[in-house]
Amino acid sequence: MAILITGIAGFVGVNLAQELLRHGQRIFGIDNLSRGTLENLTGLNGHANFAFAEVDITNLPNFRSTIRQFELTENITEIWHLAANSDIPAGFNDSTVDLKDTFMTTFNTLLVMKEFGIKSLAFASSSAIYGDHGDVPLVENLGPLLPISNYGAMKLASEAAISVAAESYLSSAFIFRFPNVIGIPATHGVMLDFVRKLKSKPRELDVLGNGSQQKGYLHVEELVDAMLFIRNHSQEKVSVYNIGADDEGVTVKFIAETTVKAVSPQAQIVYGEGNKGWVGDVPKFVYSIDKLKKLGWTPKLGSEQAVLKAIQQIVTQESLR
Amino acid sequence: MAILITGIAGFVGVNLAQELLRHGQRIFGIDNLSRGTLENLTGLNGHANFAFAEVDITNLPNFRSTIRQFELTENITEIWHLAANSDIPAGFNDSTVDLKDTFMTTFNTLLVMKEFGIKSLAFASSSAIYGDHGDVPLVENLGPLLPISNYGAMKLASEAAISVAAESYLSSAFIFRFPNVIGIPATHGVMLDFVRKLKSKPRELDVLGNGSQQKGYLHVEELVDAMLFIRNHSQEKVSVYNIGADDEGVTVKFIAETTVKAVSPQAQIVYGEGNKGWVGDVPKFVYSIDKLKKLGWTPKLGSEQAVLKAIQQIVTQESLR
Repeated sequence: MAILITGIAGFVGVNLAQELLRHGQRIFGIDNLSRGTLENLTGLNGHANFAFAEVDITNLPNFRSTIRQFELTENITEIWHLAANSDIPAGFNDSTVDLKDTFMTTFNTLLVMKEFGIKSLAFASSSAIYGDHGDVPLVENLGPLLPISNYGAMKLASEAAISVAAESYLSSAFIFRFPNVIGIPATHGVMLDFVRKLKSKPRELDVLGNGSQQKGYLHVEELVDAMLFIRNHSQEKVSVYNIGADDEGVTVKFIAETTVKAVSPQAQIVYGEGNKGWVGDVPKFVYSIDKLKKLGWTPKLGSEQAVLKAIQQIVTQESLR
Repeated sequence: MAILITGIAGFVGVNLAQELLRHGQRIFGIDNLSRGTLENLTGLNGHANFAFAEVDITNLPNFRSTIRQFELTENITEIWHLAANSDIPAGFNDSTVDLKDTFMTTFNTLLVMKEFGIKSLAFASSSAIYGDHGDVPLVENLGPLLPISNYGAMKLASEAAISVAAESYLSSAFIFRFPNVIGIPATHGVMLDFVRKLKSKPRELDVLGNGSQQKGYLHVEELVDAMLFIRNHSQEKVSVYNIGADDEGVTVKFIAETTVKAVSPQAQIVYGEGNKGWVGDVPKFVYSIDKLKKLGWTPKLGSEQAVLKAIQQIVTQESLR
């Protein structure tokens, strides 16, 4: 019995695979390597229980033949579907990016699950499905769901398609609404952006927006821990859980100052205007993880500690490049 | 200035166009005639303010050239997007039906609105986006949204895509979550089904399920009235409204008995088992229209009266065939 992970070469995929391998699971990983990298797979490739195939799952015939190939050695009983467009701003001007990479990847994953009789699905959804609710805490039973990014819209579309599949051919579905996740291997995001900016221009850090934008951050190691906890403890047919930090988060200003301290203490921070970094970025939101806490899981690190840990890791990662 | 209606040759499209023409609007109608019919357009075709084009809007180049053609005579300022797969059970075994006809029609409508600078969108969504919430009243701010039909999933995906468009290039979007709508021209649905069954087999009426399934019904004339009311009165950037009957509805048993009385009083009604007509059919739900009532609109007919009226109309329609 094996677990298939889509988007394995991405940030979350690599961390999830490492943890599942530690638990003795057989892992098949796939990725189209458009955003994930082979370099990210270095730590996995030697492992006896790990196999990788490069495939774009929006190409259904190729997806099918990859599954057939994997199943020559082991039956797949479960899919963790992480593949998606991870470059949210790229989807703003071109809605076809998230249609293809965020939604059609899910749509095709469901088609092959039906065809091959694979019955359990875990899915990386996002807090972006909620849209902007102002000060109203984002709880799982909140509506209406009016996302403001194509990424969020196509994650919501994916949730909906999964929900329907659970009504007929899936035995269980786990929908994890991801927060801002940080850690390594960092491939994008504000911290990596700041570290790289400071390395190329050590005396000044330009920040999008006025720095007051505030978000909760969860470290990827905790994210993986939470997902596996939900996978093993939730009894619902379709389990929908917010995963996130258990606090109101930290500001961009805090992240900028912390990064400057770690990389280039003499740098001056130059802020822009407004509290949105880009169109479709939700300024401040309160992300409720009460449902997850009730199930029995709470993060060990607060947003501040997670940010401090991630910045140290990213600085190390970048110094090794 | 003209209004474009997609899915014009369907049940709701025809009724909406008639009402808008009565108000002196210039109407461009399009339909791929896969489910809508030219026959439905008979009452519209003579009108000086009406023009029709047969086009499948999932074909983007054809959609574009149709718009260009229309705009030679009049600028389109608003789109009412009604085109969708209206045969919900057809989508159960084949998720690509609703992907194409329910979602990609919306996706492409948004693409052309962006390209042609058309800024106002009214959209026929559905109560099917909610999924099965048991006895919990379906209000607009309910979640999580876990639809149980591909139709519902792709309507929800459409809502999400529209919400994102409203964040950038639309000036306003109206999302109407339709209830069970009845009236003429009837093309599908339980009443037409019963009338036709009784015409071909006057002594017996076979009913899917045990007849206890209960739903609210709204007459299409009231639906159109409600949509126009919301269009003219709601001030939100994205207006999301349930439209429906203001009661708990009527049972399938009531509909069966009423139809038998109208068509073939001597017929025996034979019920099936269970309270679901088919996989994905939500048994009983309470559909809240409190938000719409607060805006100032209430239906004139209850579900019972709407059903009585529709059955009479459908009997007449079928006797003329």
